[in-house]
Amino acid sequence: MGKQTPHGDGNWQSSKSDSSGASGGDSSKESSRCSTPVLDADRSDRLRDKMRKRIESGDHWFSLEFFPPRTASGAVNLISRFDRMGSGGPLFIDITWHPAGDPGSDKETSSMMIASTAVNYCGLESILHLTCCNQSKEKITAYLNKAKHLGLKNIMALRGDPVGSEWEDEEGGFNYAIDLVKHIRSEFDDYFDICVAGYPTGHPEAETYEADILHLKEKVDAGADFVISQLFFRADTFLKFVNDCRAIGIKCPIVPGVFPVQGYQSLRQLAKLSKLEVPEEITRVIEPIKDNDAAIRNFGIHQAVEMCRLLLDSGIVPGLHFYTLNREVATMEVLRQLGLWNEDPRRPLPWAMSAHPKRKVEDVRPIFWASRPKSYIYRTQDWDDFPNGRWGNSSSPAFGELNDYYLFYLKSKSSKEALLQMWGEELMNEQSVYEIFTCYITAQSNPCGHKVLCLPWNDEPLAPETNLLKDELEKVNRRGVLTINSQPNINGKPSTDPIVGWGPPGGYVFQKAYLEFFTSSENVTALLKILKKYEPRVNYHIVNVNGRNWTNANDMQPNAVTWGIFPGREIVQPTVVDPVSFMYWKDEAFALWIEQWAKLYEDESPSRMIVKYIHDNYFLVNLVDNDFPLENCLWQVIDDMFELLSEAQELLSDGAISE
Amino acid sequence: MGKQTPHGDGNWQSSKSDSSGASGGDSSKESSRCSTPVLDADRSDRLRDKMRKRIESGDHWFSLEFFPPRTASGAVNLISRFDRMGSGGPLFIDITWHPAGDPGSDKETSSMMIASTAVNYCGLESILHLTCCNQSKEKITAYLNKAKHLGLKNIMALRGDPVGSEWEDEEGGFNYAIDLVKHIRSEFDDYFDICVAGYPTGHPEAETYEADILHLKEKVDAGADFVISQLFFRADTFLKFVNDCRAIGIKCPIVPGVFPVQGYQSLRQLAKLSKLEVPEEITRVIEPIKDNDAAIRNFGIHQAVEMCRLLLDSGIVPGLHFYTLNREVATMEVLRQLGLWNEDPRRPLPWAMSAHPKRKVEDVRPIFWASRPKSYIYRTQDWDDFPNGRWGNSSSPAFGELNDYYLFYLKSKSSKEALLQMWGEELMNEQSVYEIFTCYITAQSNPCGHKVLCLPWNDEPLAPETNLLKDELEKVNRRGVLTINSQPNINGKPSTDPIVGWGPPGGYVFQKAYLEFFTSSENVTALLKILKKYEPRVNYHIVNVNGRNWTNANDMQPNAVTWGIFPGREIVQPTVVDPVSFMYWKDEAFALWIEQWAKLYEDESPSRMIVKYIHDNYFLVNLVDNDFPLENCLWQVIDDMFELLSEAQELLSDGAISE
Repeated sequence: MGKQTPHGDGNWQSSKSDSSGASGGDSSKESSRCSTPVLDADRSDRLRDKMRKRIESGDHWFSLEFFPPRTASGAVNLISRFDRMGSGGPLFIDITWHPAGDPGSDKETSSMMIASTAVNYCGLESILHLTCCNQSKEKITAYLNKAKHLGLKNIMALRGDPVGSEWEDEEGGFNYAIDLVKHIRSEFDDYFDICVAGYPTGHPEAETYEADILHLKEKVDAGADFVISQLFFRADTFLKFVNDCRAIGIKCPIVPGVFPVQGYQSLRQLAKLSKLEVPEEITRVIEPIKDNDAAIRNFGIHQAVEMCRLLLDSGIVPGLHFYTLNREVATMEVLRQLGLWNEDPRRPLPWAMSAHPKRKVEDVRPIFWASRPKSYIYRTQDWDDFPNGRWGNSSSPAFGELNDYYLFYLKSKSSKEALLQMWGEELMNEQSVYEIFTCYITAQSNPCGHKVLCLPWNDEPLAPETNLLKDELEKVNRRGVLTINSQPNINGKPSTDPIVGWGPPGGYVFQKAYLEFFTSSENVTALLKILKKYEPRVNYHIVNVNGRNWTNANDMQPNAVTWGIFPGREIVQPTVVDPVSFMYWKDEAFALWIEQWAKLYEDESPSRMIVKYIHDNYFLVNLVDNDFPLENCLWQVIDDMFELLSEAQELLSDGAISE
Repeated sequence: MGKQTPHGDGNWQSSKSDSSGASGGDSSKESSRCSTPVLDADRSDRLRDKMRKRIESGDHWFSLEFFPPRTASGAVNLISRFDRMGSGGPLFIDITWHPAGDPGSDKETSSMMIASTAVNYCGLESILHLTCCNQSKEKITAYLNKAKHLGLKNIMALRGDPVGSEWEDEEGGFNYAIDLVKHIRSEFDDYFDICVAGYPTGHPEAETYEADILHLKEKVDAGADFVISQLFFRADTFLKFVNDCRAIGIKCPIVPGVFPVQGYQSLRQLAKLSKLEVPEEITRVIEPIKDNDAAIRNFGIHQAVEMCRLLLDSGIVPGLHFYTLNREVATMEVLRQLGLWNEDPRRPLPWAMSAHPKRKVEDVRPIFWASRPKSYIYRTQDWDDFPNGRWGNSSSPAFGELNDYYLFYLKSKSSKEALLQMWGEELMNEQSVYEIFTCYITAQSNPCGHKVLCLPWNDEPLAPETNLLKDELEKVNRRGVLTINSQPNINGKPSTDPIVGWGPPGGYVFQKAYLEFFTSSENVTALLKILKKYEPRVNYHIVNVNGRNWTNANDMQPNAVTWGIFPGREIVQPTVVDPVSFMYWKDEAFALWIEQWAKLYEDESPSRMIVKYIHDNYFLVNLVDNDFPLENCLWQVIDDMFELLSEAQELLSDGAISE
């Protein structure tokens, strides 16, 4: 340890928010120093701190409530919905607790697994609901431990509905939400942020409205961090409720729960469940149109927007919580009209982050998983900590095997039938495969008239950035250079660039050109010869399914291929081409030929044999052009390879060379 | 820990040196991964590995021998010589052991301290000689422990000269160098690289030449890593010696010790000491010119070049070791003529590295110490490990205090008299100080006709890079913006650029514009106002001697101001503006006013009071322009500051404002 030199005990003085110019403060050298160049300061905050900061800055937020799906395919759909609705920028989402649905299990339909997926794989700050009635303390503690292990940091503490129609107190058990709040605080100290429910018109079972808000105060005093309200139909109802809460000393945030009417039946059901009466001004409008879903939804949107405006304009509502009923259209429309939906989400980093607490410092990933971020997260889920400022680390752990292609959050969104239509019911030869790749690149229909919207390595259509390379990609795929990943070179575009930008404004982003593809061993033989001409400009790594490989990576070090320069920061280098992790990626990349494609066909069928032939005989190649300020030379490399091949072909056809 | 996935046990296949194209090897994911983006692969090697690599690649090297100085001022001079001769690129230097000079002590003239300074402060791979005769095992072990602690990794194991004229064996003591070799290996295992002496004509006390090389073989077998020969006068002598050594099975490198004749007396003395006869072809030439030093030196250079050419051309001599006698001219000239002197040393990093083993991974430093690298090394000498890939680290140790301005390796090269001439025998006012700063920038004479070649913060004339800013610097210094550090913005120049380039070829280097200066509190008041206009483009940190300070540094994070992009590497960011270390630098920067400048004058003298006034009242300011692709705006910031001040002045002179 170095010598310590204490110099006073004041704080660092920043004049950021100080307009007086010449006033100063004490200095201290012992102030804590941030350990990573975190671009998004929020990222390491806990939910209650994010909320506090938004309140202090007057920046309105929204949040979204979902319930767990009933079926496995429903789970796949819900995850896609998380991804889509996550892009609008909710402060958090929450997942309800369905006691009847085995909510704490590992089933893909459980509350616990859905919340875990939202946090870990969709990067969403999430609250898990938890109800305590009819549960032993041991059971509740076990749920909380599991939630903690999965990376969940926020709990909505609820009593839950009685089993029978009447409530009966249980001796020594959890009878009220407050018991659960106290239990969480006593067993887990300050680990979880705790949310509790508030009832703008009083809990249906409460003696009086006044008694109910006193009860809410007790829950807050027991350790709840904020309140989300039950649904209500008039802004006034909620505003009065907040004022009454403040009057008796409830100081934490109180967030209104907003329910945009989306259909006649769902409104009636919800009102019945909540024991609320739908006000006359609403029933008067919707009764006449009760069979016209579109009309009711339009009304619901209009009504919700009006009410939300009143709430936000009141100055005492910092954000809005939406009961989505797992539908997206109405809520998104309300948020758009309110201007709260983030139309152009700025990417903090080029890849989709996880919200697991231990991954909050993660700031670099290999480029290989760019289109399969959930698989990357899955295969690194057992890592203790994450690359901190840089990738290479001799003690970094190995990747987990990916055998669990069936996991719902790793599955293709398309059905087997749709995949067969896209990738061909019957393949004739390798050329048929080239055609599928080419159709994916050009977004055109295959010979059977079906658009190829995904490939085993890319479950989404081409990224806008990849579109920049479309013409060249089409050309090489047609000739059997089957591209699965690429990026153009970028020499200092503003970080706000709509296509390639990421990170905070005021910065500049850079990229080295990258190309990754499968190709035949004949092509690789020529390619290796050509690559000698491009030393040291081009780095390459070539490997087949058995791990036979060539690379010119310097001492097996990672090559940074995406980086950004920002005001007052260290350099951020979030994407690398890493020769070590490439050998883990190749297992997955080759396996996808079989798992996602070959297995669509009958065993021993010609189509399956063709895909299997490619899997067994092709090489996976990655190329980096290090000279990012110059024109991308990788297309020239491929051209040179084909040139050499055709020269050799000519010589052979003249009989000048014999094997 | 993640799951481990062993995949065979082969090695990574690199086709770098493989021309066969389509042959491959097994892959292994368990191969070690380099933990830092080391630019100079050599940097982490030990000496014997560096030597081996140079031999394998056929890349001839040279090394230089020095003896410890007799006086303290001699030590200051020797360190400057290390810096100058180090720039030529020796593989290593070695420091002789002077038993009469308290060689293991902490005196500035001791062998131990000189070798330590060469390693730690001059960044030179160094060998410390050690003689063992008349020493107890305990004493020798203590020396070796001290050497290890100081970062020395290489020992030249010698017997030493007898105390009397005749040698007497000591019972249980060290009688031969081989005893020392064995002792080092038994006590320190493989920690040290060990070098031993070889005698091309046999040791003067050896029974026969044959017996002597058998004895050399024993020393090597006991654990020596390589051999350096005693001086000789004919290439043939050495080549025969090597062949004889190889014939009896000595396999390690054997390096010829070359002595360029530099004077008549020194040649005679050395010959006598070495008990060598000077060959007739040499005495014949120099006897007639023995009083003409220049002529003898010219002959010596010519003769050494001829001999070295024969040695290198033989194909069995991988490098040359020079007995410099602490003089530089002759050896440098020989090396230049041989083409071994590195005329344009490529900088591996923008700052001068240390060769201490624990600093071999050091790859980032604050810009503040750019002109005082030895002071930075000194103040961080107690750190356990060094910033590894990035600077910020919440657990990083504090800086040591710099109270030891008297340490010979931190001292100014100029005498007190010279400093007074440069900085003024008598200062009239603050303006006199501005003038000195301006003269330093313009490299012109001060009013008394003396060139200002250094300042307390810069012991060398302006760097070529700073010269790019000369005109602007002159302008602002004249007006009391007393600059002590700066760099221009650079937007992607080749890493081989002669002025701003660093690191391996094929890369691109970048910089943010930086300016650091002292200025009055009146100026700072205006500056703080102006800086608001430049948010977030300009980062600033302003502090006075008491630590009163303002900054807009993001969360106290470091700002990377120099970085490089290289083929197949991560981004390298070797220089940062770090708000935490700035508070340590300011102690040193302010103290230099007093320690180096004010103390030149009598206590209470007007000159001392003027310097002390500046020390007590001025602020130290650093500014970074984050927008490196645009024109540097920092001069505009200074202009705006003066503009605002003069506007305020005008208002006051109109009487429109009263305090």
